[in-house]
Amino acid sequence: MTKSWVPGSNGSGFGIDHLPYGVVGPDRHIGVAIGDHIVDLAAASVDRLVDDPDGALTDPTLDRFMAEGPDRWQSTREQITTLLSDENHKDSVVLVDRGSAGLHLPWTVADYVDFYSSLDHATNLGRMFRPDSEPLLPNWRHLPVAYHGRAGTVYVSGTDVIRPAGQKRPQAPDQPPVFGASSRLDIEAEVGFVVGVGTEPGESVSPADLADHVFGVSLVNDWSARDIQAWEYVPLGPFLGKSFATSVAGWITPLDALRAARTEPPTQDPPPLDYLNDKDPWGLDLAIEVHLNGTLISQPQFGDNYWTPGQQLAHMTINGARLRTGDLYASGTVSGPEEHQRGSLIELTWNGENPITLDDGTERTFLEDGDQVVISATAPAVDGGRITLGPVVGRILG
Amino acid sequence: MTKSWVPGSNGSGFGIDHLPYGVVGPDRHIGVAIGDHIVDLAAASVDRLVDDPDGALTDPTLDRFMAEGPDRWQSTREQITTLLSDENHKDSVVLVDRGSAGLHLPWTVADYVDFYSSLDHATNLGRMFRPDSEPLLPNWRHLPVAYHGRAGTVYVSGTDVIRPAGQKRPQAPDQPPVFGASSRLDIEAEVGFVVGVGTEPGESVSPADLADHVFGVSLVNDWSARDIQAWEYVPLGPFLGKSFATSVAGWITPLDALRAARTEPPTQDPPPLDYLNDKDPWGLDLAIEVHLNGTLISQPQFGDNYWTPGQQLAHMTINGARLRTGDLYASGTVSGPEEHQRGSLIELTWNGENPITLDDGTERTFLEDGDQVVISATAPAVDGGRITLGPVVGRILG
Repeated sequence: MTKSWVPGSNGSGFGIDHLPYGVVGPDRHIGVAIGDHIVDLAAASVDRLVDDPDGALTDPTLDRFMAEGPDRWQSTREQITTLLSDENHKDSVVLVDRGSAGLHLPWTVADYVDFYSSLDHATNLGRMFRPDSEPLLPNWRHLPVAYHGRAGTVYVSGTDVIRPAGQKRPQAPDQPPVFGASSRLDIEAEVGFVVGVGTEPGESVSPADLADHVFGVSLVNDWSARDIQAWEYVPLGPFLGKSFATSVAGWITPLDALRAARTEPPTQDPPPLDYLNDKDPWGLDLAIEVHLNGTLISQPQFGDNYWTPGQQLAHMTINGARLRTGDLYASGTVSGPEEHQRGSLIELTWNGENPITLDDGTERTFLEDGDQVVISATAPAVDGGRITLGPVVGRILG
Repeated sequence: MTKSWVPGSNGSGFGIDHLPYGVVGPDRHIGVAIGDHIVDLAAASVDRLVDDPDGALTDPTLDRFMAEGPDRWQSTREQITTLLSDENHKDSVVLVDRGSAGLHLPWTVADYVDFYSSLDHATNLGRMFRPDSEPLLPNWRHLPVAYHGRAGTVYVSGTDVIRPAGQKRPQAPDQPPVFGASSRLDIEAEVGFVVGVGTEPGESVSPADLADHVFGVSLVNDWSARDIQAWEYVPLGPFLGKSFATSVAGWITPLDALRAARTEPPTQDPPPLDYLNDKDPWGLDLAIEVHLNGTLISQPQFGDNYWTPGQQLAHMTINGARLRTGDLYASGTVSGPEEHQRGSLIELTWNGENPITLDDGTERTFLEDGDQVVISATAPAVDGGRITLGPVVGRILG
């Protein structure tokens, strides 16, 4: 089992078995988290501690490095592992304090696609939004339903979220819509996949080839204004109810750090069409935690998700739509069969009917101004123990 | 009335009253079309024929120039007008032959939003897709319905369109979906608006402030696979049925060239909410033409559109979603009340039931491999006469 010489890093969730990438500090340097510290990769590149022939590691974003593909990702990861495990490098590696380093959005978001791949989430929302019909629509078990979100409002963890205003669903079907600030502001706990290597127009990707394209995983909070969404979403889907803000973690976990988290996905019935078929399908065993003002309000299990990340990637490219470096696709809200596994407030409070009580004794149906939401997750690490993904932090401004 | 010394340009649709911007040639120079020629603005900048203190006009895209705002756009336009009208500049301006210059996508598309703002189009599609209910959904007259499309598959005019494959609507409701190439490949004739000046998170734009943000207008063909779309689109809207390709014109018409095309929009009933209210609302009198393999198949009038470009901009920002330089928003299919004014094949052939006959005697319901579609438009020019927008050209590859 590899250990790091960085004090306190082993077993911290940000040990040498993790090594997520971010962009830190006023000069926007690429860094890798290790314990309570960050390795400055721009400095490591200049000091020739890591191979960086094209200087991609000195860029202010991960874009060029992500575009270079799995061989480069792997060799850089191996070199950083050596630097942080071999005490001989102790004096040459520049470490920055992680607590005080400002995190930036680590890559340029190209397109943002949001799936809807949790069976329990889709069933719960179907029950609430369409109470008089089957909760799952006929297409749901045949394809991973998705839509495009707004790439320009994907913000890094720590960015405040301004409560959106807009047209809200009328009080009764024959009434006009109501205008004002959303009073049903919600979260969605999701898992995002960041594309490094793009494709050509007309090309499609099979589920088994995910690792040739996906650079890493970032947790996502897909903030949602339910009252705006409910009024606008027919027939073309969510728009302003989602487009005001989406938060992502400042740290991208490399796919390689999640090898031990691969898990068998749920059985799919009916069996999917060929292009969605994977001989060796896998989900990810991520134990997600959602805290609201410090209270643990939900613990969704990502391993329960019906459609796998590989199937999602295959589906979004089967029509020949090209991928670009920086594309982000998210799982959709992760909800499990148990009440405490629901990844959104609309599910946790059942459409606002059953408020939840926080540790400070106050109740919530939806988010109030000043509320802070933190989404994080842990996953099995390669050498045993667990790594920590996230956090995705956001506070509501009125 | 200002005239140009460039031979054949006056009254050509690309006269001195138009001056659209594009990016041309192997070196990707910004250029302005004049008659059958192009003024090389990179050369004009280097030769100090136009003021370009920051060198934005020597960039390979319009991005930086677009971000600079209306005062810069106006002064550059005035200088180009002087260069092309004053014969003293005849020997100093570098003209390139327009016919042989390759056109590139002239700007980096940030987010792409597609509206659904033609009353006749929404009514026609409602009748076809939901024959048993009111064609217009309850929200339609209260807000300009829209969704996000895929920015990474917006291509410049002249790019071939690869026929998409995917899951298609089952033959009957209890049947499984069918997989294969789309057999209902369609066009949508639209008008696109290109954002130059962005906004801050939380900011919204009033309809009257459109000209502070929108750089210009580009025609759009929003290719659509109806069989894929019909199966996937509930409940989150169009995804793969649209995301394979969207074509835009290689020439962006500056908003200023469309001053004489402003027209009074249709009366709105019910009156819109305050944030959609414009004291001096305007649409654009664009006479669109759609040719399929040389046959004129449709003549939509953009002036008929229910929701105005200003209202669309106000709506997409009312929730505080920021705009970025390069955002593209399109009108949605432009259809009029007359059969020959329908901007899509699904409307022109009424869901494929009434084929149209082309000049070569062949019939079409939807697009066949090798088909070529050309969308163009004319608009009243400031000094009389008309200017020509487009073309948006695309050919289907099987």
